[in-house]
Amino acid sequence: MTDVAPTAIVYPGTVLGAGCRILDGAVVGKQPTLSPRSTAKREELRPAELGAGTVVSTGAIVFAGTTLGSGVIVGDQACVRERVAIGDDVVIGRGSLIENDTTVGARTRIQAHAYITAYSTLEAEVFIAPCVVTTNDDFMGRTERRRELVKGPTIRRRARVGGGAVLCPGVEIGEEAFVGAGAVVTKDVPPRVVVVGNPARVLREVPEDELL
Amino acid sequence: MTDVAPTAIVYPGTVLGAGCRILDGAVVGKQPTLSPRSTAKREELRPAELGAGTVVSTGAIVFAGTTLGSGVIVGDQACVRERVAIGDDVVIGRGSLIENDTTVGARTRIQAHAYITAYSTLEAEVFIAPCVVTTNDDFMGRTERRRELVKGPTIRRRARVGGGAVLCPGVEIGEEAFVGAGAVVTKDVPPRVVVVGNPARVLREVPEDELL
Amino acid sequence: MTDVAPTAIVYPGTVLGAGCRILDGAVVGKQPTLSPRSTAKREELRPAELGAGTVVSTGAIVFAGTTLGSGVIVGDQACVRERVAIGDDVVIGRGSLIENDTTVGARTRIQAHAYITAYSTLEAEVFIAPCVVTTNDDFMGRTERRRELVKGPTIRRRARVGGGAVLCPGVEIGEEAFVGAGAVVTKDVPPRVVVVGNPARVLREVPEDELL
Repeated sequence: MTDVAPTAIVYPGTVLGAGCRILDGAVVGKQPTLSPRSTAKREELRPAELGAGTVVSTGAIVFAGTTLGSGVIVGDQACVRERVAIGDDVVIGRGSLIENDTTVGARTRIQAHAYITAYSTLEAEVFIAPCVVTTNDDFMGRTERRRELVKGPTIRRRARVGGGAVLCPGVEIGEEAFVGAGAVVTKDVPPRVVVVGNPARVLREVPEDELL
Repeated sequence: MTDVAPTAIVYPGTVLGAGCRILDGAVVGKQPTLSPRSTAKREELRPAELGAGTVVSTGAIVFAGTTLGSGVIVGDQACVRERVAIGDDVVIGRGSLIENDTTVGARTRIQAHAYITAYSTLEAEVFIAPCVVTTNDDFMGRTERRRELVKGPTIRRRARVGGGAVLCPGVEIGEEAFVGAGAVVTKDVPPRVVVVGNPARVLREVPEDELL
Repeated sequence: MTDVAPTAIVYPGTVLGAGCRILDGAVVGKQPTLSPRSTAKREELRPAELGAGTVVSTGAIVFAGTTLGSGVIVGDQACVRERVAIGDDVVIGRGSLIENDTTVGARTRIQAHAYITAYSTLEAEVFIAPCVVTTNDDFMGRTERRRELVKGPTIRRRARVGGGAVLCPGVEIGEEAFVGAGAVVTKDVPPRVVVVGNPARVLREVPEDELL
């Protein structure tokens, strides 16, 4: 059994697992509307699939072509674009956006107002604090070779990224690393170190008692 | 008399003061939907209460358990979570989020896209510029002792926080202090000083003619 | 012919060009609701006008008094305020806000979660990366003389502003300039240079092959 609010819209073909809840004004399974100048792919996408017990909260949007695991919470007014794979028990905070072609591992928590760019990889048990900014294009829309170079961040298992931090295109954040609030990360961060500042520099190791 | 748009949803029990307006697609008085792994409290919350003349704008959300004073404006697509107390004549900008268990004093203005974390205190006549980021957990979800240490900022009367500034967990911003745009505030800011940079450092005093 | 979703609201008088699409839950042509203490102008605004083929996506809002060119895309959950003029083929990213009295030139792309303050000028073919923050008031609401000094940024033709960058009030970003991700721009940026850091400093020239 599922619970879909009268004002929610669930597009035909969408697969809702047992116990899914779709709250007021949410929209699930919409096809993308592309700009004539967009570089994204244009095929009709397969319907969205939501695992058991997943919740799409008030005013949130989930696109076609995307799979949400079980026990996922898509927060109020958040948005998950097309061709995204979200693992079990992930939380996507209020107002956040997960762009297309992104993978998010199980139990990862993405807090409010975060921006996860297209072609990102977040492994399991990652923590993304509020208002984190990620990017994927060093050329900001210029040159032809950018098309093969576009790359979002790779955020390894159990890494934590602090509030308002900015990740430059293609950086890797190592396992159990800690990016401080407001840091601007311009190059890869090794596993288990703390980085802070603009540009971000290594400050120290993550203490033993904070490891998972 | 109140004015509730036909597409707005006001949950039963919500108290609307005289002259309240609830605009298109707004949702007022909803109960929180918690993740199985959330650490927030789980009781059924008392209905939301809105003072006279308060406006909840297009697509905005106000949770149960929250009280808004009179003359408050909750901007378009903004969100105010549960157990929040908002004073009279407060403005909450478009798209902003006020998290749970937060207090906002009278005449405070929170501009668009701001993120006010849980367990924050904003006194009266505070100014929060657009896209300000606040945080409350130095451990980002790790260790048991974090649970007693979680603490949002305390922003004293008439302080101003600039666009895109980031406040680290638990900092106090002094009365009439001024945090420059883009500053990353890692420790308390004394009253009436201007701080800028990452990490933020004191630059000068706030000039006489800018005091309230 | 136009295509207006059954749950969208288009206010009377709104002019929709041929082929316009207004998606689920969008609101087009609303009048502003001002705070009693707001300094914005108070006249009844003329209806919104949308050019041919323009799309207002799911849950987005476009105010009265605003003109969108043809082929414009207003992304999901975005918002365009009153007295804004948007040129042809502009893209406004998901969740972004274009404040009142702003001008955006043709083919400019504003990506997701960007904040464009009131009284801004963006020329043609500008690129605004995700989560860019702009500001217009050095006094953050204090002093009477601020009223004549309020000024958003001027972003010249083909300039690019990186993810999470913060622009201080009134700065000019020169033609073909490049502001790095996370930079805090405190003064004007000359044409065709790259700036990075907090505060932003000139790093080098934009290479030939990245110019339009």
